[in-house]
Amino acid sequence: MDKPDSNAVYEWMLNFQSSVISALKGVDRSAVFSYDEWQRPGGGGGISCACAKGAVLEKAGVNFSDVQGTALPPSATATRPELAGWPFRAMGVSMVIHPCNPYCPTAHANIRFISVGCPGESVWWFGGGFDLTPYYGFVEDTVHWHQAAAAACAPFGNELHPRFKETCDKYFFLKHRNEARGIGGLFFDDFNEKSFAHSFGLARSVGEAFAPAYTAILDKRHDTSYGERERQFQLYRRGRYVEFNLIYDRGTLFGLQSGGRTESILMSLPPMVRWEYNWQADKGSAEAQLTDYFLKPRDWLNEPVK
Amino acid sequence: MDKPDSNAVYEWMLNFQSSVISALKGVDRSAVFSYDEWQRPGGGGGISCACAKGAVLEKAGVNFSDVQGTALPPSATATRPELAGWPFRAMGVSMVIHPCNPYCPTAHANIRFISVGCPGESVWWFGGGFDLTPYYGFVEDTVHWHQAAAAACAPFGNELHPRFKETCDKYFFLKHRNEARGIGGLFFDDFNEKSFAHSFGLARSVGEAFAPAYTAILDKRHDTSYGERERQFQLYRRGRYVEFNLIYDRGTLFGLQSGGRTESILMSLPPMVRWEYNWQADKGSAEAQLTDYFLKPRDWLNEPVK
Repeated sequence: MDKPDSNAVYEWMLNFQSSVISALKGVDRSAVFSYDEWQRPGGGGGISCACAKGAVLEKAGVNFSDVQGTALPPSATATRPELAGWPFRAMGVSMVIHPCNPYCPTAHANIRFISVGCPGESVWWFGGGFDLTPYYGFVEDTVHWHQAAAAACAPFGNELHPRFKETCDKYFFLKHRNEARGIGGLFFDDFNEKSFAHSFGLARSVGEAFAPAYTAILDKRHDTSYGERERQFQLYRRGRYVEFNLIYDRGTLFGLQSGGRTESILMSLPPMVRWEYNWQADKGSAEAQLTDYFLKPRDWLNEPVK
Repeated sequence: MDKPDSNAVYEWMLNFQSSVISALKGVDRSAVFSYDEWQRPGGGGGISCACAKGAVLEKAGVNFSDVQGTALPPSATATRPELAGWPFRAMGVSMVIHPCNPYCPTAHANIRFISVGCPGESVWWFGGGFDLTPYYGFVEDTVHWHQAAAAACAPFGNELHPRFKETCDKYFFLKHRNEARGIGGLFFDDFNEKSFAHSFGLARSVGEAFAPAYTAILDKRHDTSYGERERQFQLYRRGRYVEFNLIYDRGTLFGLQSGGRTESILMSLPPMVRWEYNWQADKGSAEAQLTDYFLKPRDWLNEPVK
C-alpha cells in the first residue's frame, strides 16, 4: 500500500462535518447546534455537535473523532482479524438525524479512516456510507436516494455501486426481526483499492453526496401533516433503530470498546422511543407497507415510480 | 452430578409464573394480562404473559419458555465454554415490570434451568436471581429488598447471599457508563451445588421471594404524587435499561442466538424511553443522588436507614 496523507483526511473531515451542519441549518432555521470538544485520556479526541428539539430536526448529532489507541479492537475490521491488537489511529465523521415529522426518514452517514501501525507495513483503509430509514415509504424518495448513491460511486468504477448497495442491505439487517433497518444506500469497509488518492476520492464523494440527497427529502416532506397514529408508529419503529445500533452496529461496539466518548457514540439513539409487545400493523395499511414492501432489499434504480 | 427431575422443575416454573401474575394483579386490579402460547420450530415453546397500560403497571411481561436445541450457544454458560455445541434443554421464567409511577422501581427476576446432553454425563445447572432498578432511591426500600434476598438464601448456606449479591452487582453494570443498572439483589449461574434437591430448593426459594418483596414496594409507592420532572427523568433513566439489556445481557443474547421468540425476549424493554445528549442532573438533586449514592454497590444490610 502507498503511504496515506492523514493530514488531508483530517482537514477534509472537519470541513465535511461543518458542511453537513450548514446544510441541516438550511432546512431547519430553528435548530441550534451545540459543540463539545473532548479529549480522550488514551490519545485523541473529537468534536461532538448536537441539536435537539428543532422545528424539523427532533434530534441530530454530527460527530468528528480522531482516536489513537495501543490495540485495535476486533470490531474494527471484519476482514482482517490479524490486525487486532496493533496500535491504530481511527478518524471519522458520523451522523444520525431524527426528524420530527414521521413522513421524514431518519438518516445516517459515516466516513472513517483507519491506519494501523503494523511493523514494516503501511496498513490503512476507508469505510463508511449512508443509509435511510423511513417510517412511511415513498418510491420516488427511495429511487432518488439510490440515484444519489450511484452517482457518488460512478466516477470510481461501475462495479462499486452494486457492491456497496448489497453490503449495505446485508449490514443494516436485524436478524432477530428478519427485517431490514431501512431502504439502504451505501456501505463499504476495508476499502483501499488502487491508491490512497483513489480511495480518499471515493470516500469524499460518498460523504459529499449525503447532505444534498437527504435535505432534498426533508425539504419535500417536513410540512406533511400528520396525527397521533403516525407519531406513535414513528416512536414504535424507532425501537428497531435502537435494537440495531446496540445489538449489531460495529461502529457503536468499536466506539464503546475503544474507550470512545459514550455520549457521542450513543448520540445516534432517538430522542423518544416506544416498545409495544407483539404490535402488528393492519393488513394493507401504510404501516404494513413499510415492512412488506420498502424494507425488502430490491433494485430500486429500476423500480417503477408509482 | 445426580440426575435432575426436569418434570418437577417444569411444574414448579408454570406455578411460579402464575403466582407472580396473581401477585401483580393484587397490586393493580386494572391490569389485564394476555397470554400467548408459542411453539419453536426447532423444539419447545413457551407461554408469554404481558400486560400494558395498567393503572400501576405501565408494562409487565412474565414469560415461561422451555426450549430444546441441538447446539448450546456460547452465551449460555460463562464458566464452562466446553459445553457449547452440545444438545440442550433450557427452561426458564423471566419477568420485567415497568411501573407507571417514577417513585416505583423497575424490577427483574429470572429462574432458569439448563441441562446439557454431553455423552455419558448428566450436566445441569440453575441460574437466576432478582434485581431492582429505582428511579428515585429510598434507603428503607433498598434495605428491605436486600433483606428479602438474604432471607431467601439463608436456609441454603450463609456464604450464598454475599456471593450472589456481589455477582449481581458485577453483572448488572454498564461499563460504558461506569454505572450500576440498579441497586442489585441476587444473581447466580452455573449453580449445581450439593445435589439436585439442594440446588432446586435454592432456585425455588429465590423465585418465591421475589413477588412479596417487590409488591410491598409497589404498594407503598404507587400513589406518590409526581410531575413532569419525575416522569421525564424516569423515561431518561429507562434508556440505561435498554442499553444494558441490548448490549450486555446474556439472557437476551442467549434468547436471540438460540432462536427464541423475539417479541417475548424483548418484552423486557420499557414501553416509553427517552435519550438526551449529555444530560446532567443538578448537583445535590434527588436525580443526582440516584447515581451518586444508590447506584454505588454497598453493604445495604448494614446501611443506616436515614
